[in-house]
Amino acid sequence: MNTGELADLGQQLRVDSVRAAAAAGSGHPTSSMSAADLMAVLLAHHLRYDFDRPEHPGNDRLVLSKGHASPLLYAAYKAAGAIDDEELFTFRELGSRLEGHPTPQRLPWVETATGSLGQGLPVGVGIALSGKRLDHTGYRVWVLTGDSELAEGSVWEAAEHAAHEHLDNLTAIVDVNRLGQRGPTRHGHDLDAYARRFQAFGWHTVEVDGHDVDAVDRAFAEARSTAGQPTAIIARTLKGKGVHSVEDREGLHGKPLPEAEDAVAELGGERTLRVEVHEPPAVRALHSMSTAPVGLPTWATGEEIATRDAYGHALAALGSARGDVVALDGEVGDSTRAEYFAKEHPDRYFECYIAEQQMIAAAVGIATRGRVPYASTFAAFLTRAYDFIRMASVSGARINLVGSHAGVSIGQDGPSQMGLEDLAMMRAVHGSTVLHPCDANQTARLVAAMAGLDGIGYLRTLRGKTPVIYGPEEEFPVGGSKVLRASGRDRLTLVAAGATVPEALTAADTLAADGIDVRVIDLYSVKPVDRHTLHRAAEATDCLLTVEDHHPEGGLGDAVAEAFADGRPVPRLARLAVRTMPGSASPEEQLHAAGIDAEAIAAAAKLLVEEAIVP
Amino acid sequence: MNTGELADLGQQLRVDSVRAAAAAGSGHPTSSMSAADLMAVLLAHHLRYDFDRPEHPGNDRLVLSKGHASPLLYAAYKAAGAIDDEELFTFRELGSRLEGHPTPQRLPWVETATGSLGQGLPVGVGIALSGKRLDHTGYRVWVLTGDSELAEGSVWEAAEHAAHEHLDNLTAIVDVNRLGQRGPTRHGHDLDAYARRFQAFGWHTVEVDGHDVDAVDRAFAEARSTAGQPTAIIARTLKGKGVHSVEDREGLHGKPLPEAEDAVAELGGERTLRVEVHEPPAVRALHSMSTAPVGLPTWATGEEIATRDAYGHALAALGSARGDVVALDGEVGDSTRAEYFAKEHPDRYFECYIAEQQMIAAAVGIATRGRVPYASTFAAFLTRAYDFIRMASVSGARINLVGSHAGVSIGQDGPSQMGLEDLAMMRAVHGSTVLHPCDANQTARLVAAMAGLDGIGYLRTLRGKTPVIYGPEEEFPVGGSKVLRASGRDRLTLVAAGATVPEALTAADTLAADGIDVRVIDLYSVKPVDRHTLHRAAEATDCLLTVEDHHPEGGLGDAVAEAFADGRPVPRLARLAVRTMPGSASPEEQLHAAGIDAEAIAAAAKLLVEEAIVP
Repeated sequence: MNTGELADLGQQLRVDSVRAAAAAGSGHPTSSMSAADLMAVLLAHHLRYDFDRPEHPGNDRLVLSKGHASPLLYAAYKAAGAIDDEELFTFRELGSRLEGHPTPQRLPWVETATGSLGQGLPVGVGIALSGKRLDHTGYRVWVLTGDSELAEGSVWEAAEHAAHEHLDNLTAIVDVNRLGQRGPTRHGHDLDAYARRFQAFGWHTVEVDGHDVDAVDRAFAEARSTAGQPTAIIARTLKGKGVHSVEDREGLHGKPLPEAEDAVAELGGERTLRVEVHEPPAVRALHSMSTAPVGLPTWATGEEIATRDAYGHALAALGSARGDVVALDGEVGDSTRAEYFAKEHPDRYFECYIAEQQMIAAAVGIATRGRVPYASTFAAFLTRAYDFIRMASVSGARINLVGSHAGVSIGQDGPSQMGLEDLAMMRAVHGSTVLHPCDANQTARLVAAMAGLDGIGYLRTLRGKTPVIYGPEEEFPVGGSKVLRASGRDRLTLVAAGATVPEALTAADTLAADGIDVRVIDLYSVKPVDRHTLHRAAEATDCLLTVEDHHPEGGLGDAVAEAFADGRPVPRLARLAVRTMPGSASPEEQLHAAGIDAEAIAAAAKLLVEEAIVP
Repeated sequence: MNTGELADLGQQLRVDSVRAAAAAGSGHPTSSMSAADLMAVLLAHHLRYDFDRPEHPGNDRLVLSKGHASPLLYAAYKAAGAIDDEELFTFRELGSRLEGHPTPQRLPWVETATGSLGQGLPVGVGIALSGKRLDHTGYRVWVLTGDSELAEGSVWEAAEHAAHEHLDNLTAIVDVNRLGQRGPTRHGHDLDAYARRFQAFGWHTVEVDGHDVDAVDRAFAEARSTAGQPTAIIARTLKGKGVHSVEDREGLHGKPLPEAEDAVAELGGERTLRVEVHEPPAVRALHSMSTAPVGLPTWATGEEIATRDAYGHALAALGSARGDVVALDGEVGDSTRAEYFAKEHPDRYFECYIAEQQMIAAAVGIATRGRVPYASTFAAFLTRAYDFIRMASVSGARINLVGSHAGVSIGQDGPSQMGLEDLAMMRAVHGSTVLHPCDANQTARLVAAMAGLDGIGYLRTLRGKTPVIYGPEEEFPVGGSKVLRASGRDRLTLVAAGATVPEALTAADTLAADGIDVRVIDLYSVKPVDRHTLHRAAEATDCLLTVEDHHPEGGLGDAVAEAFADGRPVPRLARLAVRTMPGSASPEEQLHAAGIDAEAIAAAAKLLVEEAIVP
């Protein structure tokens, strides 16, 4: 396209953004208009993409980090012939594929859900990493980002990661329209301010007038020809560009244009330009991700081994059997034991340093290319990335997370290092699976099972050693549980997971010696929870006592209660959990102080069985 | 102190770090040894601090961002005479004040709990902001940070915030010891790499040999004399400095020295140097934070107004009555309505732009100086800062958080903007209070009540209008609830909060018309939960049906279940919640699609009352 045609295409994208938002009665047309020329040039001259084959291994990948500018994206789809005008008008309607913020669950051309700012570039880094280190099919990753969202630290985690890995297949296009939601950004139109920052992190930068289509064209060409480092194109633009009444004005964020028809006229009216987007190169499909039967490590019952050790060994074995398994860690691989995988499969191991948001984003990006990532850090530090985990769920991403050093049982390091909110956090994620094994063989089986999960998988591991109580042949279906003690005389059921399972077993022995038989359930699958076994326990015993190394809210106790939240009769319930703020102490002292050790369990069980509980 | 004495003090800090970790059998002596000379010079020549009066308004503030180097901090306390050798040897023991990672809950000289890396500088920025904009008592904030933790994006949110606010009372001391937990950092000893980044963000930087005490002394003096911008001192150091067997070696992170006695000898043996830390200047106490009776805004019953609007108006009124109330927002003040406060009290309003981690950290920092911060953004985006909220709880910080745009009821913007995990996230925080009002008068009362809370307060507000159902004189104690419908014939209890309260009331009317009386409880205090009222409802009706605009895990349903988790007989429970991934749609369509509108509630209630539920 020549200069005039490119400019014309930009205007068409504006017109269609205005029309879509006007039809919806909501949306972000002005944020779309600022980036319209950038999108026009990208679409017409630089993107290589087959809209009929979004899974094409040679396709470039486009991420709209400023997800609220979805009208622009949908207008571009229309210009490329992927959707028609009629569908454009379904924008933001119930059931439409064209949501307020784009998601891959609805549209095959969307790589990742956006709408929480500062996430597009981190995920783009993940895709570019996959391209550079795993796929080798030559695609480029283009991320269109806003300027306000550069205030998010996650953007600088991404900038650091991308430069360190020399991702010259990645281009960030920064739409510097000067205005955030409620007013001017910190840096306004000071393009240098952004360029300095990207340069300091090791990026090549190009500053450009984002409405000069020829200059933009040259900038994209420069990005494509820059080797050894990623490029940031810092583009000066105007929010609401092209319509006088809204251009460069405050107070209009997220609002349809007041006089949409006049605006369309001012933009030169409707157009029907159709862009022939460049075909991707004919490349072979992703290299073999063959899978063979997994030879999981096993341990003899009675051995003592930490579940985090079992995780590391099992993941390494899984990686040997499956070429699609990759691992990521946040600079604690020697603690999480992800290092066992790293040693055996260095080509598929991604060191993310202490940047948990970027680690999750990289996992999401790599998962878009068909791989099965396992990302690990301390359970406590996964809280750092909760927004990324939440958005991964909106994306429908298939990623596995592993949080080590769960609970007070870690001992001396104290509360900053203890995962005590992780079960609550992960249970609340839509479509998640939450697993908390207590021994090594169980851990290994669950690690392998996670490779087949949909959605977000979470495995919670322990720092300290626990006894191996299951044989290597035992199976542990997701959604299952294990009844470890049962008799016809059970008066109460103990429900435990992880570190509290051995404590519950010891308590059961103590109680049995006192003539009180109790059932013990290892509820290793916290979500989905094994309703059937819990219901049977409720029929057999009139009280269920849960014991968890986690705060009382959102964890095991809540999961058990949820199993009875369908209107059926509910057994008596009681829960032991970490109700105080721990300090430093030995693991045994911690369990005792929190009231979740065998002694506390036995005492509580006796009270529940023997004493009348007066409401 | 002269050069020799400073160097000697550095050695003493190393010796005591080694001894403390050796006694504990765990801890991070090598991470302490790298920064010992930096700490020695700071303590002897630059810090102004009265250890007998930690609350002194003129005291400088020292933040150990690399919290694992706690032995160094405690060794410094000993050198300053604040603790003795005997206490030093309680390091990491049960009940000791000297925890593995320092916390202000135990020690009066600690400003904020650290141990989750990348948080010290953000909180330090908050304290420096308080000093610069509120306290005006001239104190400086010194933050000792590691090099690995600079990979955290939160550090760059802090860097941006500090430079933008010209915080020349803030100094970051970066201990570049080259080694992270599992190996070399990305940049090793490349001091320039860090200096470039800080400079790009607007900081003054000084590169220095961190073991040359005179050079360090000059660097600190340069920081103190730098006006208009914060200073980062980038210090080249060696991990384990001074003991050949561990110096600059990998694989020794977080481990006591193998031969502690030999190491102490190599460091020149035990010393008993005592530092006279400079007194803070005689300044007056913090300027008046007087409080007057609050004239809260009120609304007439029947009016329709969004609870977020009520929040903004109530906070502005509270700010007029109380000089200690401050507000922060993440560039969405026009949506959260924090802008109402900003307009009336611009001097006490902190715009944090789109950097939620930094916003929470700033609130924590400002709270350390005795103020009562309210920090707001969309409920969904508070997930971005979960690790900071968790650590604020470890600190025992008193901060209030406000999450707007909760639930599917926001409508068209879709799932990325919907807070659907926030109740779970906030309930699981130790010592938190979680409030979810349904009308404007209730909101205003709760906003005022939050100013008196301990710990982390959370208020969940709604985007859309809801009818005012309570009169302006109604009181809403934290931990309470309101019974909105009750009769002697109630067959079931509906428990709702926020957007589901009006739906529950409509459902109750429908059911009453069909001859089914139901009780309706507005459970505005989700944590602590009103056990008494729920227990009474359980006695009067045999089933409780919870209805929440939140995922089924960790929210209202779990809170109600928790009220019965003490071994007492449990009523039948059922819950309606958001079980599918929403898309774009109108608020009404969203509530309907999620099955939490009046129609769904009435249908579920009928089923529970009329049908036999077969377990």
